Amino acid sequence: MNLQANIPTTALPRVVIIGGGFAGLELAKKLDNQQFQIVLLDKNNYHQFQPLFYQVATAGLEPSSISFPLRKLFQKNKNTHIRVTEVQEVDTQNKEVITPVGTIAYDNLVVAVGADTNFFGMPNIEKYAYPMKNVGEALLLRNTLLQNYEDALVATDTELRKALMNVVIVGGGATGVELSGAIVEMKKFVLPKDLPELDFAQMEVTLLEAGPKLLNGMSEKAQTDSLKFLQDMGVKVKLNAQVKDYDGAQVILADGTTLPTKTLIWAAGVTGNKVKGIPAEAITRGNRIVVNRLNEVTGLKDVYAIGDIAYMEEEKFPKGHPQVAQVAMQMGTNVAKNLKAGLHQQPKKPFVYTDLGSMATVGKNKAVVDLPFIKFSGFIAWLTWMFIHLLSIIGAKNKVITFINWVVSYFSYDQSLRLIMRSKIEKQ
Amino acid sequence: MNLQANIPTTALPRVVIIGGGFAGLELAKKLDNQQFQIVLLDKNNYHQFQPLFYQVATAGLEPSSISFPLRKLFQKNKNTHIRVTEVQEVDTQNKEVITPVGTIAYDNLVVAVGADTNFFGMPNIEKYAYPMKNVGEALLLRNTLLQNYEDALVATDTELRKALMNVVIVGGGATGVELSGAIVEMKKFVLPKDLPELDFAQMEVTLLEAGPKLLNGMSEKAQTDSLKFLQDMGVKVKLNAQVKDYDGAQVILADGTTLPTKTLIWAAGVTGNKVKGIPAEAITRGNRIVVNRLNEVTGLKDVYAIGDIAYMEEEKFPKGHPQVAQVAMQMGTNVAKNLKAGLHQQPKKPFVYTDLGSMATVGKNKAVVDLPFIKFSGFIAWLTWMFIHLLSIIGAKNKVITFINWVVSYFSYDQSLRLIMRSKIEKQ
Repeated sequence: MNLQANIPTTALPRVVIIGGGFAGLELAKKLDNQQFQIVLLDKNNYHQFQPLFYQVATAGLEPSSISFPLRKLFQKNKNTHIRVTEVQEVDTQNKEVITPVGTIAYDNLVVAVGADTNFFGMPNIEKYAYPMKNVGEALLLRNTLLQNYEDALVATDTELRKALMNVVIVGGGATGVELSGAIVEMKKFVLPKDLPELDFAQMEVTLLEAGPKLLNGMSEKAQTDSLKFLQDMGVKVKLNAQVKDYDGAQVILADGTTLPTKTLIWAAGVTGNKVKGIPAEAITRGNRIVVNRLNEVTGLKDVYAIGDIAYMEEEKFPKGHPQVAQVAMQMGTNVAKNLKAGLHQQPKKPFVYTDLGSMATVGKNKAVVDLPFIKFSGFIAWLTWMFIHLLSIIGAKNKVITFINWVVSYFSYDQSLRLIMRSKIEKQ
Repeated sequence: MNLQANIPTTALPRVVIIGGGFAGLELAKKLDNQQFQIVLLDKNNYHQFQPLFYQVATAGLEPSSISFPLRKLFQKNKNTHIRVTEVQEVDTQNKEVITPVGTIAYDNLVVAVGADTNFFGMPNIEKYAYPMKNVGEALLLRNTLLQNYEDALVATDTELRKALMNVVIVGGGATGVELSGAIVEMKKFVLPKDLPELDFAQMEVTLLEAGPKLLNGMSEKAQTDSLKFLQDMGVKVKLNAQVKDYDGAQVILADGTTLPTKTLIWAAGVTGNKVKGIPAEAITRGNRIVVNRLNEVTGLKDVYAIGDIAYMEEEKFPKGHPQVAQVAMQMGTNVAKNLKAGLHQQPKKPFVYTDLGSMATVGKNKAVVDLPFIKFSGFIAWLTWMFIHLLSIIGAKNKVITFINWVVSYFSYDQSLRLIMRSKIEKQ
């Protein structure tokens, strides 16, 4: 028996949203707070701006600049209730969400739980490699990278020192490209100044991609240019390279090659987060939840899925949409509109994804941008990337502080954020 | 058998400094890098600006604004070697420091290990209370405070909710005064906006001081004014109140009074950090190391102690100096001068503490300042406090970011730093 969570009961229909990522947050913001009671559930008390995790991991930005407290966002919305908790199960028969803080009844349920790292069933990778799908993991990676150079400094074994200095990144998507660019810039501009006793000429940054090209899904120009940028900067890019195993010190590729490294960063794919209670029939490839064009979960009533977790077949996207922020936000907006339409017996609109373009930054003055009608790369692309990301960060103060950090980085390549900071998690 | 740490051997005399706090850092900065080889050892790779821990704990500042990477500070000093490690033992016979990264020989050793929280032998306090003597502890306190209000929101038991909302601070020194002021301002301005479902009129902030007055060591004006400020702001200040025990939910005072709280903050005293190998004869009250006026450890040759760990009897300070940043920095400076004098067979100068004054902030527009010739409080004191602390923070960018945060806090009382962020400490 689970107690009812103490959320006020009102005459308004209650929308329970699981997840405060791009999709869930957009929905909560767009839903009219006078017409609906909103209950937003998240494990964390903050929204995370995923596109800049790689800058936290490479000590270029503070975690707080890209994390925003959910409560502050909804301070003015009296009918929005936030609960920082995990969802144990959804009971779609009784229209309830079961959590450690009690059972929460819903009129409409929106699953926006996103995706997490996919280790493709390789237990050693899961055990030893570093994923980067939340701020905590980005911080752990930052601490690890910095600690490894401290350890390299005092290592007496040359093989060990090599493994401590080398970094291998798996996955040639935006995350892998951006990370390997940022790390090779650390190698060139930052680390030798901090640790003049180490010979960074010996440090290798390797990017492995299982497919034949980087930035799958972007234009051929973006793919070619990003490869050239990375190679010019000194990243060893290996295409068609498949990781077979990793023992924490050495990566073994399918072709038998071995790469010594203590830092294997895994950005090779994602899998949807599981929600107990969603029937198996509604789950498809990549653990995504099958939805119709209204984002309604197949076979369920009043249950929606949006964002990375949702699998929708659209004319132009017969195998589902890319799992990116833009899709998530547009789905959130559309479901908000349809819920309002439903309230007033107006017709609902099927989701149509408007691709506004995609981009990735590789290094200083180097980015690739695909807009619907033009593809470009280099300095202007890099300015575009910065401008768009600065605008997307939540909060005026975060924008200013991020901008200051970027300016400092641009001129000095030398942030003062290289902190190995491990706070105790609990008192006991 | 311990290996020699791989630090280059030079013709320069080697000064090994244990601790990168105010004392050790000042010494390392003031010692001539052409005349000495400096080995700076610290557990962390950053210097911590202790006076502002309380703002990190109350979500007013980022940890990175008050932490500065040691390596960045000494990038230009080729003869300064930093090792992030713990000291296991000092061997004053063989003039060596023993660490996990090897044995480090010294010509001169400077112990600047500072002080940590004194729980006065009360195991329950150590187990359940929250100290705040490093950035990690300040972050743990921030997470705990914020999490407690999340828990209070879903608590079904009214007694438990009360204990989750109340905060008790022990110790009426600058830390206790500043923390209780900052927490009562959270209660008044911040928390009710974030959590309108909770009734913060029921939250109590209590400051307990065992002695008859606050800010012991400051002027009577500062003591009276700070008490009045805190009381006006709504802090329950109890003087002559001694904590007897704490079970994690209820504080028991010596007079039998009980106070329900899940958050007991312990700022009641410090004790010197232990260094194995310093003879017991050299240790005195508060676990401090007895030094002469040249900061030489009693009974040892070429071993110095500076900062909070040093106990020196000066004419005006017959019971030792106050354990504050100013004393630490001045000792660091003086030992640097004397080491240089020793190198050139010049006379050494005994340490004389120049008291530049002391200050504490209580809340917005409210601080108390004692300067040698004038004592004042209120708005001008508060401006003085901010100005001095802003100047003391290391790094131009940190100054700017702290300033921005303070301006935002001043006008909105509403930072976006209320993040419950618990990063995993290790991969496995």
